[in-house]
Amino acid sequence: MSPSAFARLPRPPYYAVIFSAQRTDGDHGYGETAARMVELAAQQPGFLGMESTRGEDGFGITVAYWESEEAIRAWRDHAEHAAARERGRAGWYSHFELRVARVERAYGWDRDAASGDRA
Amino acid sequence: MSPSAFARLPRPPYYAVIFSAQRTDGDHGYGETAARMVELAAQQPGFLGMESTRGEDGFGITVAYWESEEAIRAWRDHAEHAAARERGRAGWYSHFELRVARVERAYGWDRDAASGDRA
Repeated sequence: MSPSAFARLPRPPYYAVIFSAQRTDGDHGYGETAARMVELAAQQPGFLGMESTRGEDGFGITVAYWESEEAIRAWRDHAEHAAARERGRAGWYSHFELRVARVERAYGWDRDAASGDRA
Repeated sequence: MSPSAFARLPRPPYYAVIFSAQRTDGDHGYGETAARMVELAAQQPGFLGMESTRGEDGFGITVAYWESEEAIRAWRDHAEHAAARERGRAGWYSHFELRVARVERAYGWDRDAASGDRA
């Protein structure tokens, strides 16, 4: 059993976009747009999965997984995503960092299942 | 101004260990050991920085950044870290995923500063 918060990914290699961000106070339309971006990203070619969490202090980390650099670039250039990013800069974040990485190996463990080395 | 939750990293390339985990209920010594592991990791050769957050549902993401695969392996093999991992499997987590990735480009933005493309 893999809880739904976890992405179910193929064997590496694949790519990760690691987005860490400090939210400003208040929603300002963030929640609705964030949910839409998750929905839209999942429809893009090469999207593999996403994991995301945010603490009570407003600091959050989202990692989106993609098949290729090409898929990441296409998502970056998607018009609705680009517009959402502009709104993010305008009102939702005080600081963010984005890192693009090539995942080379992966390992998972589950209390209720046999542990599995997947790479 | 970069809030302290953010790692201050050199230009890529460097490596990321992306650890996502679902905590079990209760502390069971987790908080003390987690703080010790952060302190200990920061003392290791090749450690660059760390970002971490956990939501109220107990799902957390920690990303540790390292200079090299060799540094990651040395930390994996550190005796006190290995003992802490065993305790994690025994009581702190119901599920986790660990992914090792090579960061190829990075970009940061701050509301109070000029935005900077760092790769």
